[in-house]
Amino acid sequence: MSSKARLSPCDRVGILGGGQLGRMLATAGARLGLDVVIFDPQAGCPASRVAAETITAPYEDLEAVARFAKSVDAVTYEFENVPVETAAEAARHAPLRPGVQALEVAQDRFAEKSFLNQHTAPTVAFKPVESADDALAAVEAIGVPSVLKTRRFGYDGKGQAVVREAGAAGDAFVAISQQPAILEAFAPFVRELSVIAARSLDGQMLTYPLCENAHADGILRETRAPASVSPEIAAEAVRIAEAILTALDYVGVLAVELFELKDGRLLVNEIAPRVHNTGHWTEAACRVSQFEQHMRAVAGWALSDPAPIRRARMINLIGDDVEGWADWLANPRAVLTLYGKRQTRAGRKMGHVTVLED
Amino acid sequence: MSSKARLSPCDRVGILGGGQLGRMLATAGARLGLDVVIFDPQAGCPASRVAAETITAPYEDLEAVARFAKSVDAVTYEFENVPVETAAEAARHAPLRPGVQALEVAQDRFAEKSFLNQHTAPTVAFKPVESADDALAAVEAIGVPSVLKTRRFGYDGKGQAVVREAGAAGDAFVAISQQPAILEAFAPFVRELSVIAARSLDGQMLTYPLCENAHADGILRETRAPASVSPEIAAEAVRIAEAILTALDYVGVLAVELFELKDGRLLVNEIAPRVHNTGHWTEAACRVSQFEQHMRAVAGWALSDPAPIRRARMINLIGDDVEGWADWLANPRAVLTLYGKRQTRAGRKMGHVTVLED
Repeated sequence: MSSKARLSPCDRVGILGGGQLGRMLATAGARLGLDVVIFDPQAGCPASRVAAETITAPYEDLEAVARFAKSVDAVTYEFENVPVETAAEAARHAPLRPGVQALEVAQDRFAEKSFLNQHTAPTVAFKPVESADDALAAVEAIGVPSVLKTRRFGYDGKGQAVVREAGAAGDAFVAISQQPAILEAFAPFVRELSVIAARSLDGQMLTYPLCENAHADGILRETRAPASVSPEIAAEAVRIAEAILTALDYVGVLAVELFELKDGRLLVNEIAPRVHNTGHWTEAACRVSQFEQHMRAVAGWALSDPAPIRRARMINLIGDDVEGWADWLANPRAVLTLYGKRQTRAGRKMGHVTVLED
Repeated sequence: MSSKARLSPCDRVGILGGGQLGRMLATAGARLGLDVVIFDPQAGCPASRVAAETITAPYEDLEAVARFAKSVDAVTYEFENVPVETAAEAARHAPLRPGVQALEVAQDRFAEKSFLNQHTAPTVAFKPVESADDALAAVEAIGVPSVLKTRRFGYDGKGQAVVREAGAAGDAFVAISQQPAILEAFAPFVRELSVIAARSLDGQMLTYPLCENAHADGILRETRAPASVSPEIAAEAVRIAEAILTALDYVGVLAVELFELKDGRLLVNEIAPRVHNTGHWTEAACRVSQFEQHMRAVAGWALSDPAPIRRARMINLIGDDVEGWADWLANPRAVLTLYGKRQTRAGRKMGHVTVLED
């Protein structure tokens, strides 16, 4: 077990999860001289192909997790559905940054929204739902339209059902397979925004400028940054991000997805305790990307000024979009990133492109 | 053997040599979705820690070289002292980009300068030297001061002896261990410049702007880019680079080191058939770095506009300089790259930093 708070160059950082986020974290870490070790259940995962070492094992194999964590100087994770037991086991053998609590909060929509409200971060109204009766009572309290979502493992729009009339509450509960759920008021937002924030081991907090995001079918399609917002909205986003970072005693990069309401108020949609798709533009448009920022924090090092050098538009390449790679490569304003995934599937994130603007 | 001229994303590129240049090429390739395979005699070399696969074997093990080349879709090299036989063996099994001729020319200072002059690229006057008698005759023809250099394997100022008077020619030949050599006239330069150029499979040629370089003890210390030069000098540098690229039917990035004389003439000092230390600033200051540009060419893909976004100053971290890494990390204008070398040695390149200017 390493007890060093601050790593040295050439030290080893372990990443739980080896998808594209792990891949981009690994190359950012390598640029700082760090050796990266990936832990992922899938052999040949995207990050394994740029890592110093890879351990292929299920997350439930806590012996493998212990071996992994003992072999590195700090551990982080690339996605919020790493089992809490896995993260807790890793934390027994190496500093885990961010910590277990961030996972616990982010994995459960009810815990997440309760935590956010408790720490001055506003959200839509919500109620926990354990049964069809709960669903009905919740719809009566919150009104329609509202959205019933599974508490756990929902992403990219999966595990959700819109409730358009009170009588449909029971059907919605069936539609999400009668799992423990949360009913959320519908947010009448005018824009989807997000903020990528970072906190260092010393408690220093820095945020990239707000991004404006467009989703379709529950999947992020495009991010524009910096978003055109008033100084008041920008300041409120920073206030919210810093409240969350502080409450979690967080170390690393955190993404906060926000709804902007017609009256200029911001509500938190959800948080992601990791680098985030809406921060990919930072790689091409900032001196230091969200990936390097996260690795700096994980290593216990100084954060970097997140001011962008250029305005940017990030476009996700989803499924067949990736067929356009050669055109993007030839585009004189575009920076192309492909994730090294051999199988193209509908809805699968295959890469992204950042178009730099003047 | 792959006969594809143009690679697809997820194809494999082999790199002969796994030092810091191979490391930066590997991460640039990975960003484009390519899998990189490193061939290097040294286990645990810097590039191996960011590569999909590494083959550890001596360059002379042509069976291992054949196995390596057969396993990839194209091969390139990160340094010019890869044995020609090794490169030729690789070229039997996969497209080798750049080709064998570029190595042959770059490995022998006499062949190099002869080739350059033949293709309209001016150099200092020079004579081949095989014996002490040759050395004396060469000094008589070329005059003093002049520099006696081994024809092969000189780098970072090694294998060189300055001849300050005609009578010292024999001593100089002894000083360089009586190896086959070349006597070069001393270039009364006012500045050291370099140009990083690229040529695609289609013959498209693009050059990054000229850089101004400062050496000490034969090792590059600092590069400033773009260099402040007249349009005439910039055009002459491009003309020279394109003449060399065309003559070699070159595919990839090539560096041309230049002397600027008092009267504004340019002489070629040497060429490097690879990405180059004086091009490292492109990583932080251009949309597409020399590393990505090279990997694009090797893959048979379109090159990118090399216009820089920012002015930059690149500082090499040599030996103990690397101890300053934490200060550079905290510098709000600096982009730090460390090479993952565990042993600090005097004169060893440990990393570099690019300072962005307004």
